[in-house]
Amino acid sequence: MIRAGIIGATGYAGGELVRLLLGHGDVEIKWYGSRSYIEKEYASVYQNLFRIVDDVCKDDNLKELAGQVDVIFTATPQGFLASVLDEEILKKVKVVDLSADYRISDVDVYEKWYQIPHKSPQLIGQAVYGLCELNREKIKKTRLVANPGCYPTCSILSVYPLLKEGLIDPDTIIIDAKSGTSGAGRGAKVQNLFCEVNENIKAYGVASHRHTPEIEEQLSNAAGRPVVLSFTPHLVPMNRGILVTAYASLKETDQGLPSEEQLRDVYERYYGKERFIRFLEKGVCPETRWVEGSNYVDVNIAVDARTKRVIMMGAMDNLVKGAAGQAVQNMNLLFGLPEEQGLVMPPLFP
Amino acid sequence: MIRAGIIGATGYAGGELVRLLLGHGDVEIKWYGSRSYIEKEYASVYQNLFRIVDDVCKDDNLKELAGQVDVIFTATPQGFLASVLDEEILKKVKVVDLSADYRISDVDVYEKWYQIPHKSPQLIGQAVYGLCELNREKIKKTRLVANPGCYPTCSILSVYPLLKEGLIDPDTIIIDAKSGTSGAGRGAKVQNLFCEVNENIKAYGVASHRHTPEIEEQLSNAAGRPVVLSFTPHLVPMNRGILVTAYASLKETDQGLPSEEQLRDVYERYYGKERFIRFLEKGVCPETRWVEGSNYVDVNIAVDARTKRVIMMGAMDNLVKGAAGQAVQNMNLLFGLPEEQGLVMPPLFP
Amino acid sequence: MIRAGIIGATGYAGGELVRLLLGHGDVEIKWYGSRSYIEKEYASVYQNLFRIVDDVCKDDNLKELAGQVDVIFTATPQGFLASVLDEEILKKVKVVDLSADYRISDVDVYEKWYQIPHKSPQLIGQAVYGLCELNREKIKKTRLVANPGCYPTCSILSVYPLLKEGLIDPDTIIIDAKSGTSGAGRGAKVQNLFCEVNENIKAYGVASHRHTPEIEEQLSNAAGRPVVLSFTPHLVPMNRGILVTAYASLKETDQGLPSEEQLRDVYERYYGKERFIRFLEKGVCPETRWVEGSNYVDVNIAVDARTKRVIMMGAMDNLVKGAAGQAVQNMNLLFGLPEEQGLVMPPLFP
Amino acid sequence: MIRAGIIGATGYAGGELVRLLLGHGDVEIKWYGSRSYIEKEYASVYQNLFRIVDDVCKDDNLKELAGQVDVIFTATPQGFLASVLDEEILKKVKVVDLSADYRISDVDVYEKWYQIPHKSPQLIGQAVYGLCELNREKIKKTRLVANPGCYPTCSILSVYPLLKEGLIDPDTIIIDAKSGTSGAGRGAKVQNLFCEVNENIKAYGVASHRHTPEIEEQLSNAAGRPVVLSFTPHLVPMNRGILVTAYASLKETDQGLPSEEQLRDVYERYYGKERFIRFLEKGVCPETRWVEGSNYVDVNIAVDARTKRVIMMGAMDNLVKGAAGQAVQNMNLLFGLPEEQGLVMPPLFP
Repeated sequence: MIRAGIIGATGYAGGELVRLLLGHGDVEIKWYGSRSYIEKEYASVYQNLFRIVDDVCKDDNLKELAGQVDVIFTATPQGFLASVLDEEILKKVKVVDLSADYRISDVDVYEKWYQIPHKSPQLIGQAVYGLCELNREKIKKTRLVANPGCYPTCSILSVYPLLKEGLIDPDTIIIDAKSGTSGAGRGAKVQNLFCEVNENIKAYGVASHRHTPEIEEQLSNAAGRPVVLSFTPHLVPMNRGILVTAYASLKETDQGLPSEEQLRDVYERYYGKERFIRFLEKGVCPETRWVEGSNYVDVNIAVDARTKRVIMMGAMDNLVKGAAGQAVQNMNLLFGLPEEQGLVMPPLFP
Repeated sequence: MIRAGIIGATGYAGGELVRLLLGHGDVEIKWYGSRSYIEKEYASVYQNLFRIVDDVCKDDNLKELAGQVDVIFTATPQGFLASVLDEEILKKVKVVDLSADYRISDVDVYEKWYQIPHKSPQLIGQAVYGLCELNREKIKKTRLVANPGCYPTCSILSVYPLLKEGLIDPDTIIIDAKSGTSGAGRGAKVQNLFCEVNENIKAYGVASHRHTPEIEEQLSNAAGRPVVLSFTPHLVPMNRGILVTAYASLKETDQGLPSEEQLRDVYERYYGKERFIRFLEKGVCPETRWVEGSNYVDVNIAVDARTKRVIMMGAMDNLVKGAAGQAVQNMNLLFGLPEEQGLVMPPLFP
Repeated sequence: MIRAGIIGATGYAGGELVRLLLGHGDVEIKWYGSRSYIEKEYASVYQNLFRIVDDVCKDDNLKELAGQVDVIFTATPQGFLASVLDEEILKKVKVVDLSADYRISDVDVYEKWYQIPHKSPQLIGQAVYGLCELNREKIKKTRLVANPGCYPTCSILSVYPLLKEGLIDPDTIIIDAKSGTSGAGRGAKVQNLFCEVNENIKAYGVASHRHTPEIEEQLSNAAGRPVVLSFTPHLVPMNRGILVTAYASLKETDQGLPSEEQLRDVYERYYGKERFIRFLEKGVCPETRWVEGSNYVDVNIAVDARTKRVIMMGAMDNLVKGAAGQAVQNMNLLFGLPEEQGLVMPPLFP
Repeated sequence: MIRAGIIGATGYAGGELVRLLLGHGDVEIKWYGSRSYIEKEYASVYQNLFRIVDDVCKDDNLKELAGQVDVIFTATPQGFLASVLDEEILKKVKVVDLSADYRISDVDVYEKWYQIPHKSPQLIGQAVYGLCELNREKIKKTRLVANPGCYPTCSILSVYPLLKEGLIDPDTIIIDAKSGTSGAGRGAKVQNLFCEVNENIKAYGVASHRHTPEIEEQLSNAAGRPVVLSFTPHLVPMNRGILVTAYASLKETDQGLPSEEQLRDVYERYYGKERFIRFLEKGVCPETRWVEGSNYVDVNIAVDARTKRVIMMGAMDNLVKGAAGQAVQNMNLLFGLPEEQGLVMPPLFP
């Protein structure tokens, strides 16, 4: 039995992590950390877990927690983990960080986009970017996983194969993303009240969202050269789900444009054996409703011969594959368990 | 491995049944029956099951199906099962009927409220009303389970203990119920379009809804005398969930009104050991969000000393405990499996 | 031109009041009071009014305001107006109070249900309860209007005719009400976040909601004797709208129960000439979508011969007839304008 | 008093047209045409108009109608108007067509994208594309207005100024659009049921949506050369609203990229005096909630120096400025009325 601790257990990602770990089979949650609800019953915060979880919330003392568990999940504000993590803790436990603290390899980029100093830059090099389908083997060997952001997970997986294969022009990538409101967190803000979000759609963080450099770094790795792209997130009146609509110009060769079938073959080759990536049948658009509550990413493409562009689409549950599910997937890799353990439930519809 | 067939697999209740049975562990679905989608891939109708279910839809030939499986679930329009079920089929398989055909013991009452003739009244006596918490032992021995309606399940379980104990006046029961829109089914009707349901609440079937006699029959059994009550369903702009707010006058005795604690003790006694009924802590109102995707019914009461009434509240997922989940629970009872098998996932929130 | 000031202009009711007054024709808003947004542009808070309103928000100095306008609307927390209103102010301006401070004639009842001391009980007697259809003539002559609560408006208007005519038993009234989320206000609370309200329905304030005594007082007046009733509000995942489903036992006479036609005649008689009350055709249930954005209350009844009860239903927009619209209607009465001025737009659908 | 007839009065755009014309002041609706509801009371279809509209629905006999009114609005399926309109009718009445029949000047393009033959190509040349802000003077003089599509209205107005001024590269335009569900019409289709749309976002019509050539034609006019662009619509779980997020590469000159201020100046110059286009303050993103129920289009831009792109955003109500509101605006121009008459209500929020 793997003993797990969660810091930030009362946010939406933390709550989802609890739900998934309760059904995992080989994990016992030993520590429900929540600075805001210390000493309160966890099930009074998330009443779906009434009579399922009896524990009360504890603080965020990482040092103390490190002595009691095998793995720590941190679903905490940016900067928190970087300010408390050290070698001593990493010698005792494995850490899966759902914040952005160790996702960006260049500390200057991190500090510029997040506007906070990074307190433990020396640990960045140790972290593995936990996008399981791309970094599976590295994750198995690390002590510190930087669990990817929700938008980056969906964006990268949608674009990766064609970029890696050199079939699209890296300078033309535009990612237009749409997220359910759980992505905005559980903080009490007027802008996230029901009546402000319901019956509305808006873009936000235009040309400035923090997930941009994370996407760019991973896609630069894929392209083998720096990629600078446009990323625009939107807020959608629904609880869960991220949809990515990405655009890029196809590279013409002497044989002309690649055909849709050629592009589809690439995706099949990259993702055909992946448990959690479903490359859809031709003509079927990904929709967030078909992945809700599950760890799946549904991906598909459409070729637009008129504009010589390809539209790459991805849909996933931002709280599962975009946060807690991928964290569990990473934990499975860290501990040598079957990668899909605890993540096999079919999506919930409607 | 129990072999199961589903007639009506492409309605919302049928789809939920598929989802639950896929995670059950001891069941194999052999027949996805759907008259509207014969020969179409099931996963093209419910794309959440893409790469999970490979089968195509079949017809609704119950006789043929009976020879191939151990249990048949029928999630079909009223009257269908009654028109095809016979002794021959029941000798081969167990049947869990999610329609209303065998829920009402008095065939005249059925025909009056449903406005259709009952084609196999001789089988009504064999059916057991599948409200597991009330009829557990009978269900284990039957071949034909009348799976309860969604509103009746939540209504009966909310009111049952106080009525059974004679603590409320049976002539004063008023049930005001609210349901998510999946309860209205997947038929293409203008009144169920997104723009017609969204941003709206309405009552419907006022003083005439078909679930009324079903609730009355079960509560009459509890009271030991005929109960006639008011039942008003409402349509709520959400996918899943039923909330029942029931009112009744408390019976005064020489010692005056029963105290809230006395009433709470009754619920604790009736439901304290039930796996799927959660009697909430004092002062906490049931909410549908806390049971979504699960087989739980959350119940609580409030005593109003001013009016000498008790307000009894229940919340559940109409597609799970109100349909497919209870059907699986019944199947578990029929086949001697642990009652909770395949039904232990915590509710999904948000 | 009537000069108007609004205290509490940045809440949802305040915002709606601004919208309605902008279209009124004979009103000029001189003061957008909002303690939270002083000096901020009003249109930066409610961006729908960008390039329509240029004013910045001011404070809540009622004394100063009284010297500059003809009418003051207060959409403020309970207790505020009672703590600052005095004879001096009332000599200068008319006041329409959207809070509860002067709705309850018995100060003890107010202090018990609202749990705050009333600072100006001597003014309660001067206030007129501003349910226009019931108190039209009194309103015309007063200086201080207690604008009714949202639930009370819909509840009282639904039940009033049958109670007034002695056709229902006052001891059997149960009001089950459902409200959109704008009724919960614009304060930043976790419980009102999108993800907490969406896909959920719950009861709240069971047997304890503050609108209960307000409804009881008005219905007691109608009945000519004290009425004690059950009132249960519910929160519905939609922006606007209140639906009331009220139950009462019909009084039997020597001729038996009154017929549905007799009851319908009563409603026609009471409401047939009312501009803002629509008594629907037989069999048509009120729905909140049909009144959105308008000052209408849609009312209808259903008789349940089996239980000898009548179900009385009402639907309205909680921000219009339940708050700002009725406030404008009251202002029209106060100033001798046509009662419907500024309130004639048809409801918005979908 | 202008006498108006509406063919297709029971669709969502038709219903909105009725609402707006009822509040116009100088219009009388003489004919509520609806093939599906002939002889039924209009207010039984749109119950928001109970006691406001007493008429029953009539058929779609354009010839007969032409003799009775001054203006005909057609909110009908593609191809209908083209199949019945002729010179004789146009001699009697002015026509504002909300379908696409006369929007595309090249009949081949129309027939290719709409997959139906055009029955009156000889009339295309007479029609004026009714985007009022661009074609105001031409509209005043025509008999036949092709009222623009919802997506085109918002897309064109967002992109027009920079394209017209030659500041963006026409070959790089990508329009990612999001629409509320009323845009899908009132037909009874499974895919538009509440439970299918709610809690979901999807792209549809990728690289194939019929509004593409309409946008391209107008933007080609602006650019003075053919424009081929990517257009991807998405379905959002809300009733009303369209949001456009458009991307294009800025043209570099010897002075480098144009500054954000330079670009803002262009929008101010083009739209500063427009009654219904609000160019927002710097940094404020358009949101559909701020325009609901109104004829406004809110527009803004963000410059991304990193990618040398500009993001152009527009938000409007698809049923008002995207359909019925613009139709009324066109009617006002046709009849010499103030352009804003009947369209001055502030947006409704929340």
